[in-house]
Amino acid sequence: MATAGKVIKCRAAVAWEAGKPLSIEEVEVAPPQAMEVRVKILYTALCHTDVYFWEAKGQTPVFPRILGHEAGGIVESVGEGVTELAPGDHVLPVFTGECKECVHCKSEESNMCDLLRINVDRGVMIGDGQSRFTINGKPIFHFVGTSTFSEYTVIHVGCLAKINPEAPLDKVCILSCGISTGLGATLNVAKPTKGSTVAIFGLGAVGLAAMEGARLSGASRIIGVDLNPAKYEQAKKFGCTDFVNPKDYNKPVQEVLAEMTNGGVDRAVECTGHIDAMISAFECVHDGWGVAVLVGVPHKDAVFKTYPINFLSERTLKGTFFGNYKPRTDLPNVVEMYMRKELELEKFITHSVPFSQINTAFDLMLKGESLRCIMKMEE
Amino acid sequence: MATAGKVIKCRAAVAWEAGKPLSIEEVEVAPPQAMEVRVKILYTALCHTDVYFWEAKGQTPVFPRILGHEAGGIVESVGEGVTELAPGDHVLPVFTGECKECVHCKSEESNMCDLLRINVDRGVMIGDGQSRFTINGKPIFHFVGTSTFSEYTVIHVGCLAKINPEAPLDKVCILSCGISTGLGATLNVAKPTKGSTVAIFGLGAVGLAAMEGARLSGASRIIGVDLNPAKYEQAKKFGCTDFVNPKDYNKPVQEVLAEMTNGGVDRAVECTGHIDAMISAFECVHDGWGVAVLVGVPHKDAVFKTYPINFLSERTLKGTFFGNYKPRTDLPNVVEMYMRKELELEKFITHSVPFSQINTAFDLMLKGESLRCIMKMEE
Ligand SMILES: NC(=O)c1ccc[n+]([C@@H]2O[C@H](COP(=O)([O-])OP(=O)(O)OC[C@H]3O[C@@H](n4cnc5c(N)ncnc54)[C@H](O)[C@@H]3O)[C@@H](O)[C@H]2O)c1
Ligand SMILES: NC(=O)c1ccc[n+]([C@@H]2O[C@H](COP(=O)([O-])OP(=O)(O)OC[C@H]3O[C@@H](n4cnc5c(N)ncnc54)[C@H](O)[C@@H]3O)[C@@H](O)[C@H]2O)c1
Ligand SMILES: [Zn+2]
Ligand SMILES: [Zn+2]
Ligand SMILES: [Zn+2]
Ligand SMILES: [Zn+2]
Repeated sequence: MATAGKVIKCRAAVAWEAGKPLSIEEVEVAPPQAMEVRVKILYTALCHTDVYFWEAKGQTPVFPRILGHEAGGIVESVGEGVTELAPGDHVLPVFTGECKECVHCKSEESNMCDLLRINVDRGVMIGDGQSRFTINGKPIFHFVGTSTFSEYTVIHVGCLAKINPEAPLDKVCILSCGISTGLGATLNVAKPTKGSTVAIFGLGAVGLAAMEGARLSGASRIIGVDLNPAKYEQAKKFGCTDFVNPKDYNKPVQEVLAEMTNGGVDRAVECTGHIDAMISAFECVHDGWGVAVLVGVPHKDAVFKTYPINFLSERTLKGTFFGNYKPRTDLPNVVEMYMRKELELEKFITHSVPFSQINTAFDLMLKGESLRCIMKMEE
Repeated sequence: MATAGKVIKCRAAVAWEAGKPLSIEEVEVAPPQAMEVRVKILYTALCHTDVYFWEAKGQTPVFPRILGHEAGGIVESVGEGVTELAPGDHVLPVFTGECKECVHCKSEESNMCDLLRINVDRGVMIGDGQSRFTINGKPIFHFVGTSTFSEYTVIHVGCLAKINPEAPLDKVCILSCGISTGLGATLNVAKPTKGSTVAIFGLGAVGLAAMEGARLSGASRIIGVDLNPAKYEQAKKFGCTDFVNPKDYNKPVQEVLAEMTNGGVDRAVECTGHIDAMISAFECVHDGWGVAVLVGVPHKDAVFKTYPINFLSERTLKGTFFGNYKPRTDLPNVVEMYMRKELELEKFITHSVPFSQINTAFDLMLKGESLRCIMKMEE
């Protein structure tokens, strides 16, 4: 590789300040250090999390920063100690990692790696506490270890899933974050059985991915719950059989759902981030066997409240992080689900723009018009 | 059977009024009606639930009543439609039933039978809304469908587990309620793996039974948590390796446990009925894989509160009713665990008295001196 070991100059979208349009700049990307990999990004998508940290409302502002965490790319070069990846490998970056050595990575149940668990405040590499991005020698911060809004980026090997090179990166790039999160919440955590009734709270990209999981599980009734009635139309493509808008009733939505389903749904997956939806999602599951799964990230002061009798009558409440997928171990298999044409990804991709028009992608998401907008790096 | 189809006169302990000593009376026990069984009780034990309903604080008072729900007996005669039991069969009455036909009974996961689920306010048989007990023709109310404080009692066939006739009824009678509840909470719901760390909140009979489940599961560390330091000594017999008294610390006990266990216990089982212990039991489990199980019956106004992030970091909260055992299907197997000398029951039986001294059994429980006091009907 002609570029290995050298600084690469390329285009990146830099967020200089909270809420200000990103600007495409020429950045220098340093070579990968020990356990790091430099990746050429081919496609990147936009997720709400990028928008939150760009707005930086209520968060520690970390600027200037290169955002982006849903993407597909090809390994350009690897740093010392990297044996699992080689130049040319196709990879999906993931905002949370898998070191394969900590208690979480060694546990069959957890994907919350101690070493590489998401850290939204850190803007540097964990190896040496430095950034690999500079503009005229001035460091530009990283974002959740991925910073995919750049033609080249440096990522810890533990945050890269090596995938089937035949998989189209312009489609599977959306498996880096939200889609896998929702899908795994249903498939790995809620685990509905064939023929069951599943309620999905919140019909954004994550909720629709949870719905795709319900469809794949063979649920016979899939009830979408959203405050925005416009969401029903799109949800039908994901197998939504019934729609409930909590605003249409003057009683708690959990009561509405219990009446519709003879006592409660078998599974509920909450993908709103709102505490009232979390409580409703739990309280709407059937006694004896119902399982509710929380996915949405709530306001940090929000408190979950319920009567303990709701547990004692044999309901289960769980939460999930990245759909309980271990990034390196499990994501390649999710890609294969797509390759086998079980998992449908096209319906999530509502828009695509060239990378230079990244601010259009932000606008579409802010207006609620897009589910996923793909940006092509090479124009 | 000489007595079949006839009224039987026998001794029973009648609670005439809330909180007043029971009195041994001669009662008439009518023959079993359709789907009912008349059982000769050989041994009965006393459980806190009997005491609560005898005190009747904050509950609908139902008097005069024959209490009692932990017992072992022999079928005397059966009513119309009863095919699974015959005179001479050994049985354990259970306060909650299994009709084998409702959605719960047909579900593999639930034991909350729609027809025969516990009903503490009902003092009559479900078939005809009548009592089978009278004194000089005046009805005496039943208790949770069992009323085992009587030499003979009438019970719905769905509330009787047919067990191995070789099993000693003076030991296995305690499997009717609290011991199975605690044991099943660990074995069926928390399901600790071998070598794991388990915290048990509340070291009464139910908590110690949960601890017995942890021992049987091969837990390597079993932490007992109780506000009463005197509970530790007895708990050691049940495999307790560490004891924590929340009163000894000026921080929440969940933090104490997390520090003791490098981040949290693998499983926690709450057997106190107190909301603060419920919250601590949930919050003390390890992120990534921890499971907490609620068993205790709380005050009806108590509210469970926690930050949703505790779920999102992959903790699970479940509740259980009767340890998730289906009474007719599963209790015979619990009896076999005892017969195979895996499950130890003797250590729960701290006292025994003749039936005529039932008020002594109440005193022992009220003073906190007994775990289980067995009463022998024949003196
Ligand atoms: N986007 C990701 O990659 C990702 C990853 C992990 C977790 N999450 C979390 O999942 C949640 C959903 O993400 P998203 O990108 O799909 O968000 P989104 O904003 O696109 O969708 C949320 C939906 O929930 C609906 N909603 C809000 N309050 C509701 C209520 N009380 N009842 C019913 N519906 C309600 C909204 O109308 C909206 O349609 C967020 O909390 C997010 O932080 C997202
Ligand atoms: N007894 C049964 O058959 C049965 C069956 C099902 C459910 N339950 C429920 O299980 C619970 C326990 O029953 P039991 O008979 O063992 O009761 P118990 O009163 O004998 O034991 C409860 C123990 O919890 C301790 N405790 C109370 N508050 C505590 C706290 N905040 N932290 C730590 N320890 C605390 C007490 O000191 C006591 O040792 C009750 O709520 C009961 O209703 C009982
Ligand atoms: Zn790890
Ligand atoms: Zn995302
Ligand atoms: Zn039933
Ligand atoms: Zn009991």
